[in-house]
Amino acid sequence: MLDRFRRHLGASGLIPEGARVLVGYSGGADSTCLLHMLRVAGVDVVAAHLHHGQREEADTEMRLCEAFAESLDIPFVSGRADVPRMSQELGMGLEEAGREARYGFFRQAAYQLDCQLIATAHTRNDHVETMLLNLTRGTGLTGLGGIPERREEIVRPILIFSREQTRAYCEENGFWFHDDPANSDLSFSRARIRHRVLPELRSINPAADSALMRLASLVQEEDRFLSGMAAAALEQSEISVNGELKFLTEDVEVYFDRGRLSGLPPVLFRRAIRLAVEALEASLDHEQTSILLSGIASQERGSVTADGGEVVVEWTPELVGARRLQPTQPFRYALTIPGETMSDEFGWQFTAFEEAYDQVSPARAELSTRIDRRKTKGTLYFRTAGSGDTMRPLGFSGQRKLSDLLSESGLTPAARSRLPIVCDLVGPIWAPGVCLDERVRPEASTDLVLTVRFARISPNDR
Amino acid sequence: MLDRFRRHLGASGLIPEGARVLVGYSGGADSTCLLHMLRVAGVDVVAAHLHHGQREEADTEMRLCEAFAESLDIPFVSGRADVPRMSQELGMGLEEAGREARYGFFRQAAYQLDCQLIATAHTRNDHVETMLLNLTRGTGLTGLGGIPERREEIVRPILIFSREQTRAYCEENGFWFHDDPANSDLSFSRARIRHRVLPELRSINPAADSALMRLASLVQEEDRFLSGMAAAALEQSEISVNGELKFLTEDVEVYFDRGRLSGLPPVLFRRAIRLAVEALEASLDHEQTSILLSGIASQERGSVTADGGEVVVEWTPELVGARRLQPTQPFRYALTIPGETMSDEFGWQFTAFEEAYDQVSPARAELSTRIDRRKTKGTLYFRTAGSGDTMRPLGFSGQRKLSDLLSESGLTPAARSRLPIVCDLVGPIWAPGVCLDERVRPEASTDLVLTVRFARISPNDR
Repeated sequence: MLDRFRRHLGASGLIPEGARVLVGYSGGADSTCLLHMLRVAGVDVVAAHLHHGQREEADTEMRLCEAFAESLDIPFVSGRADVPRMSQELGMGLEEAGREARYGFFRQAAYQLDCQLIATAHTRNDHVETMLLNLTRGTGLTGLGGIPERREEIVRPILIFSREQTRAYCEENGFWFHDDPANSDLSFSRARIRHRVLPELRSINPAADSALMRLASLVQEEDRFLSGMAAAALEQSEISVNGELKFLTEDVEVYFDRGRLSGLPPVLFRRAIRLAVEALEASLDHEQTSILLSGIASQERGSVTADGGEVVVEWTPELVGARRLQPTQPFRYALTIPGETMSDEFGWQFTAFEEAYDQVSPARAELSTRIDRRKTKGTLYFRTAGSGDTMRPLGFSGQRKLSDLLSESGLTPAARSRLPIVCDLVGPIWAPGVCLDERVRPEASTDLVLTVRFARISPNDR
Repeated sequence: MLDRFRRHLGASGLIPEGARVLVGYSGGADSTCLLHMLRVAGVDVVAAHLHHGQREEADTEMRLCEAFAESLDIPFVSGRADVPRMSQELGMGLEEAGREARYGFFRQAAYQLDCQLIATAHTRNDHVETMLLNLTRGTGLTGLGGIPERREEIVRPILIFSREQTRAYCEENGFWFHDDPANSDLSFSRARIRHRVLPELRSINPAADSALMRLASLVQEEDRFLSGMAAAALEQSEISVNGELKFLTEDVEVYFDRGRLSGLPPVLFRRAIRLAVEALEASLDHEQTSILLSGIASQERGSVTADGGEVVVEWTPELVGARRLQPTQPFRYALTIPGETMSDEFGWQFTAFEEAYDQVSPARAELSTRIDRRKTKGTLYFRTAGSGDTMRPLGFSGQRKLSDLLSESGLTPAARSRLPIVCDLVGPIWAPGVCLDERVRPEASTDLVLTVRFARISPNDR
């Protein structure tokens, strides 16, 4: 078994050389086997154990887990969760709440302990059961793929082994393990699949598990391929909005050329529109994509609200757009000078510093500007545009309504409500990318200016 | 139910206006319901009943079926099969032999009665059971699609209804029906799926059947899309062999550009190579396509034998080829003059007729030639090229070995063994596309010539 495990690690490239791996270690046979095999294979591992706050034996189990990890010279980290309370507060089942708690704990611990990967001890049995559960509850190709061997930073190195094999491995090696609560305390559905459905399938074909595993890997491959095609098609159909301020709204609205999108084969259209909505953190079910498919093909205008009601997909004769519905809350914050002011929520940052004026005049609409600090009144701050705001654009003599300026700049309503307007005590002095007020323009006599830059937060800072 | 049936017929376009449909009518509730609903919907139907030679009641049932069809004014046709004997002779299970017998009978009857479509009474239950059976036994996307609503000339108009619904329909209308042997005399596997597995899945999700149906239709759609892409990629990679004689071997060999084929995404490569082998009436399983995928990516040369052993896929640095292995049997037939001589097996035909000589000399290598009939000895016939054959090519003075001429013409070994050589008593006089013998060349004094044309049979004649 160890040989096969080593070969599998090598062939799959699941764990890169030198990676530090956090192992979810419950003390059950599956995770005990995983922890030991990874250790023997020379992987740098940390054992992470979450006390679910559910069973009396959990205290003892945690101590025994720690002892086993110590006996193997493996760093051990543990945490506590009150899963029953979580379950109640979040309105989830115990199983789901337990999973949420575990993955949350694993992610946090992995971050703190500098682990690049999280390994969980899912077996072939879990995989096949999940496939059949998804199948029963209704799924597309994605759910039919069962448990992926890798998703983001989570890897499942023993998906190729059965639960019986992990148990035999622990018994042969004389390791302590307990019956994993995640295995015995089954949800009704999973227990049915495990104890009633799978035995029947195995009586039809003793190799039913392998047949399902093979299907899953095939389906995963075809699913990834189709998603890749859909993503490429989506990218080619995208219509950029808000120009250089695009980053202001890219997680709340996205637009596509209707002709291109509706020209896609239905298989790709369905996947593309789902990807677009998923990028806004919502989802479409099969019926919703069907309505969109036929609606966009035959009706001039229309809209479909995505699951959960926070995202709407709308189409006009030219465009198909997906956007979050909830309005942006008004905001108001001080501008840090000198230094950076970041908005994690919106994904942008201001950088402000004073420097010698090089006599280069600021332009009216740029993402970087120069302000004559002496002409501003009081503390600088930024806020949402208000309905009464007016500005005097650089080089013009009269005041104009800010809302008109924003609208003329071609910004979408979402962008207008998210653009931070830099103000002083008197009012707006700079709407990034839209307008600098004549009132604060540097003059020939100015020696020091305040330079302010508005930019997307680089992905590394988020 | 009738309304829904009518709407479904309209929306799916399953049965085109004016089509005559043969209905497979066993006398069970499913086919009784189908027959009646089609009739009421105004479709021109014929009821076809096959006596399976298996059960004592079958004689009575056949009579009752005939009576029911007559009561609806529906033409009735019946046949008899000895399914138990077929099963023994063909080495199949009773279920499979019965299916073979039924579809054979339906096809023949449809042809004789001028029916464009054959309708079978598969229900949602059959569909879902088939999906789960395929899933258990090992399948890719194609098997997961279950029973297609339409394949070639066969349609399944009541796939949207459950077995319970067809039964209720018959009972409400007071129709006679018997318990379909195809339902009660179940194979072990199907019975397990029906009586043990599906009830469990329904206890997890009461709408499990619909969930499976939805998956099937999604999977069918994605499967078709991927197959279409693979077929297009295959066509673009194909390398034509045997020039204008291509049709001689297109059902026994096919070649592709290795670089193009191996440059495909694995998902498409797998499907493309399977399509190529399926065109030769063989099949590749998942493991065989995996070996081909990695072999063609990494080894200079190699080969894989397809299921059944009759087709081999080989690759060289430049090519990937699939070809049938079994050698062509030698053949010898008289040439019909005047008239046509067809080979259904090989898919070509000769057309021979005498006409006034227009003094246009025949070329050495064409698919149509002119022969001076007076110069030939005895009856003309055609046969496989023999190892001792020689010919004197038009315009040359010496005899040459026919095998060398064939080889120089660039024909593949398969084409050489399938090319019919026209001979007289003395020996070969024409190898179509390769060589006409100087001995039978028309002269200036010739007035009547025998024109012979060699061509592929047009698809309509096959």
